[in-house]
Amino acid sequence: MEAADMAWLLAAFAMVLLMFPGLAMLYGGMLNGRNVLNMMLMVLSSLAVTGVVYVVVGHGLVLGDSVGGLGLIGNPLDFSFYTDFMSDDEAGGTFWAAFYVLFAAISAALVASGAAGRMKFGSWLVFVALWVLVVYSPLAHWVFAFDNPEAGTVGGWMRNQLGFHDFAGGTAVHMNAGAAGLALAVVLGRRKAQAGRPHNLPLMMIGVGLLATGWMGFNGGTAGGANFLAQYVVLTTLLSLCGGMLGFIAIERIRDGHATMLGLGTGAIAGMVGITPVADVVGPVGAIMVGFLAAAAAAWAITWKRRHRIDDSLDVFAVHGIAGITGSLFATFFANPAAPGEMAGIVFGGAFSELGSELIAIAVTLGYSFGMTFAILWVMNKIRPIRVDEADEEAGLDRSVHAETAYDSRPF
Amino acid sequence: MEAADMAWLLAAFAMVLLMFPGLAMLYGGMLNGRNVLNMMLMVLSSLAVTGVVYVVVGHGLVLGDSVGGLGLIGNPLDFSFYTDFMSDDEAGGTFWAAFYVLFAAISAALVASGAAGRMKFGSWLVFVALWVLVVYSPLAHWVFAFDNPEAGTVGGWMRNQLGFHDFAGGTAVHMNAGAAGLALAVVLGRRKAQAGRPHNLPLMMIGVGLLATGWMGFNGGTAGGANFLAQYVVLTTLLSLCGGMLGFIAIERIRDGHATMLGLGTGAIAGMVGITPVADVVGPVGAIMVGFLAAAAAAWAITWKRRHRIDDSLDVFAVHGIAGITGSLFATFFANPAAPGEMAGIVFGGAFSELGSELIAIAVTLGYSFGMTFAILWVMNKIRPIRVDEADEEAGLDRSVHAETAYDSRPF
Amino acid sequence: MEAADMAWLLAAFAMVLLMFPGLAMLYGGMLNGRNVLNMMLMVLSSLAVTGVVYVVVGHGLVLGDSVGGLGLIGNPLDFSFYTDFMSDDEAGGTFWAAFYVLFAAISAALVASGAAGRMKFGSWLVFVALWVLVVYSPLAHWVFAFDNPEAGTVGGWMRNQLGFHDFAGGTAVHMNAGAAGLALAVVLGRRKAQAGRPHNLPLMMIGVGLLATGWMGFNGGTAGGANFLAQYVVLTTLLSLCGGMLGFIAIERIRDGHATMLGLGTGAIAGMVGITPVADVVGPVGAIMVGFLAAAAAAWAITWKRRHRIDDSLDVFAVHGIAGITGSLFATFFANPAAPGEMAGIVFGGAFSELGSELIAIAVTLGYSFGMTFAILWVMNKIRPIRVDEADEEAGLDRSVHAETAYDSRPF
Repeated sequence: MEAADMAWLLAAFAMVLLMFPGLAMLYGGMLNGRNVLNMMLMVLSSLAVTGVVYVVVGHGLVLGDSVGGLGLIGNPLDFSFYTDFMSDDEAGGTFWAAFYVLFAAISAALVASGAAGRMKFGSWLVFVALWVLVVYSPLAHWVFAFDNPEAGTVGGWMRNQLGFHDFAGGTAVHMNAGAAGLALAVVLGRRKAQAGRPHNLPLMMIGVGLLATGWMGFNGGTAGGANFLAQYVVLTTLLSLCGGMLGFIAIERIRDGHATMLGLGTGAIAGMVGITPVADVVGPVGAIMVGFLAAAAAAWAITWKRRHRIDDSLDVFAVHGIAGITGSLFATFFANPAAPGEMAGIVFGGAFSELGSELIAIAVTLGYSFGMTFAILWVMNKIRPIRVDEADEEAGLDRSVHAETAYDSRPF
Repeated sequence: MEAADMAWLLAAFAMVLLMFPGLAMLYGGMLNGRNVLNMMLMVLSSLAVTGVVYVVVGHGLVLGDSVGGLGLIGNPLDFSFYTDFMSDDEAGGTFWAAFYVLFAAISAALVASGAAGRMKFGSWLVFVALWVLVVYSPLAHWVFAFDNPEAGTVGGWMRNQLGFHDFAGGTAVHMNAGAAGLALAVVLGRRKAQAGRPHNLPLMMIGVGLLATGWMGFNGGTAGGANFLAQYVVLTTLLSLCGGMLGFIAIERIRDGHATMLGLGTGAIAGMVGITPVADVVGPVGAIMVGFLAAAAAAWAITWKRRHRIDDSLDVFAVHGIAGITGSLFATFFANPAAPGEMAGIVFGGAFSELGSELIAIAVTLGYSFGMTFAILWVMNKIRPIRVDEADEEAGLDRSVHAETAYDSRPF
Repeated sequence: MEAADMAWLLAAFAMVLLMFPGLAMLYGGMLNGRNVLNMMLMVLSSLAVTGVVYVVVGHGLVLGDSVGGLGLIGNPLDFSFYTDFMSDDEAGGTFWAAFYVLFAAISAALVASGAAGRMKFGSWLVFVALWVLVVYSPLAHWVFAFDNPEAGTVGGWMRNQLGFHDFAGGTAVHMNAGAAGLALAVVLGRRKAQAGRPHNLPLMMIGVGLLATGWMGFNGGTAGGANFLAQYVVLTTLLSLCGGMLGFIAIERIRDGHATMLGLGTGAIAGMVGITPVADVVGPVGAIMVGFLAAAAAAWAITWKRRHRIDDSLDVFAVHGIAGITGSLFATFFANPAAPGEMAGIVFGGAFSELGSELIAIAVTLGYSFGMTFAILWVMNKIRPIRVDEADEEAGLDRSVHAETAYDSRPF
């Protein structure tokens, strides 16, 4: 690991940290004004809890040598308590030990979408710890852990056996969070009160802005250094962001007759989600199209959700699940072999069989994430209900659970 | 291009991206509460539209080989669809292809100052596309495209024939946006309603903060790497920012008897605008003075504007036009030959003839930008009026055009 | 100085700049709605004033050759007017000349906690200039200026004679600001009106978020390059941030029965303060504990303060003073010799005598800062009262001093 590469990675790390206040604002701004602080606390406490859990055993579960060589889960004792990272391995191991905490934590934070305004805060803290260990870690192992013949270690099955391409976490981060958010919404049930309109759209807008800068660190840092790949993926991430904004407001204009801030912001996120797994394998024009289509698909999924009775309040399934799937499928067909990832989509000479691996990876990710998240929550709920009581919900969780209000409503 | 240089440039890129939410907050916070989202949508959609237009032909117009060797406009087919940037040219071409999108887009976004609360959103989207192609691209070519005898390509006349010094875009970005904003305000006419007070000054303050960090990326990235020049320009940019804050509140204190947040924030921006073209050629004390004088000049221009009937609502002409001119003129007289740009101001042994080139560059930039922007808008307005109707304006564009409100006003 | 190291430092610099809007939001959001802009102006004007003062003589006072070789104060004429920094010393001197402005300015800005809602703005500006010269500069010299036998220069006594370990400014920045804030609160006296609840907790949350990213630049930049130490300190800073959030809400849960956003945010800051002096000498698990204990200590100190009649309105003494002391003392006992700082805590084989140096450094820092700050303010107050009159205080300083209000309260 050269110092020049580390220089970029350190900057990328600090930017990814912006995603936590960014997501807190995005989610908080979209909610009504009685559950803002509760949502922000769920997002930020995800980082706090994950930081501890991940240091103890999480990093081993994700990047440790695969237990039994099966590619299913890493050895939790590898890297336990992070003592290995106190000396320089000259490969940036200490850096990655910090960076990966953020990946796990942001995935957990995204899931809070399904719990808006109705989950006990203590239950949330327990859930995050369990979810990171039982749901995120295996999925991340499957796709982030490479076989390392030199070191004699075995990585995850999805990356190494299935040969599935996922640049920066389309499966383990975005589809996973989407499916888990849906499971959380199903277990908790719908909110009693009307959801209400977003209480503060400028707040949501700032969140989108910080998330965009953080995303450059997320995707650009995944390139592993200040190399050509990093240049390329920040370009495609930017173009997909642009395409996503246009895609969502185009759909809105046609469907509703007007473009909205909520729509443009949602499209921006969906565009960046869509490019995350495929930022290195599509061309520049392809990147714009990924963003446009991912946002359009998310817009469609939001409409679809409203017709059903699942209260994934902040649409993590539509914006991260569906948009992530859209990006992955786009690349299966339209990946440009001239891009640095050197993957040929079906249209440009790739094998049709790629579609099979793709669908397996998506189905397994969604199925495992939804099923296992559902199971955790079902058990937790049996032991002690995880939903707040009705009076607390009606009062709003900021007041009833946290004894605070987001804004001081006295005139000034 | 060394990896170390690229490491800084990648970080600078991600920071410049913060300028978009930053400007959206600056402009949005300064408006009344009925047109906040509309303004934010104008700023962010500038990035979306520019991203697409620029990839198609914009980058060629700016940095392509000058058509006919005249130095007036680059070849739009050079770099078209960005296919060139899918492989590594070892000179960071792919990086610059991403970075320059942000330069064009932030210039377009600044122009929205002249349209606050009264322009159709569809007209704005069309305007951005045309303006980037017809106004920004030639101006950027004139000053950003260097002659390259090795590659046999010819650059812009202002940089290469006139020998005009512009470090990071005082003309193509700031004076250009200022003049264009003025033209937009003239074509649209004044707002019917009282402008009202800024609805959210803390929001404006956050915007200034994000813009300042973005500006370090903007000016520091223009240094082209992690070199001494980059160190120097972040130092002068910081000092000019400090001088700008002090300059504006000093004027306010004398003129009005009190310093304001609106003033300190405006001064911060004006200070950074002032240093942008001259960050490499003034000394540290000169940098403080550039900021102080640019902010004082902007304060004077805002007062002057209020007496006339031009509704450049958010003062892009005063804060970017006048402050940019002030910085450029300061350097003509006081550029310090010991600074890394090695330019001698008239006071320190420079030629008085420099002033001539300077005035030509400024006059041509302002004239071309104002005239051509006016022409585009005049034609657009003939085809279909670009101003919303009176009822929509009175209701506020957030509600009438976007069917949203920035804040949910129900009590909570 | 390698270009790779400079690449990271430049990025770190731009991130530290985010600490100013971050602190303005943290402090502003925690206040009632009538003194928000005044607080933001105090924070941002600290940067403006420090920028100028520091360039004139401040950098010499901090890093100049110690006057008389005594280790008490640097030579103010070294680096005066920053003309030395116009050429490349190949050691990054120009960069540090910019970076250190931010260290001095953020220390001054933190002190504003003790002046919330009752200090004349002009008096604040004068105070900042004096405080940076008379209080901050000597303390920074003591701990930041290393002896340099090659250049034949002498540094500060605390670093070089006492051998006190302070990684990134636990004494000169955090304990100093804490003690000075307390002195300011004592001289000004308590606010007349009820303090009121925080007027905007989401604003406070954004502030915490920007401060966290800035802190990575602050601690990570202090490592001096893109090296292993930088990797290590961003890891420990992240883990201490996590520990701090958990520590504060754990105390809240036990003491009050509920976790709050105000608490989680305060804990995040306290955690980062606690790790700042010791980020290179504790292990990963130690870093979590530093955060947890620093936040718990801050929570205790806030409760303690409420019982007394000192109105350190935004708790800089508790959150920066007490948390900083906690972090330092933790390392005296539990510093892990395997960490890159190679310091052995008493428990791991260190000498018990270390505790003596530690206590001397803390006591001298707190004593000098409190005493000298008190003296400056006492003299200023004798010349002209520094507190606003009662009517202005009751009206709120935004309106009475700055003729503005943070939000436009007209319905929209």
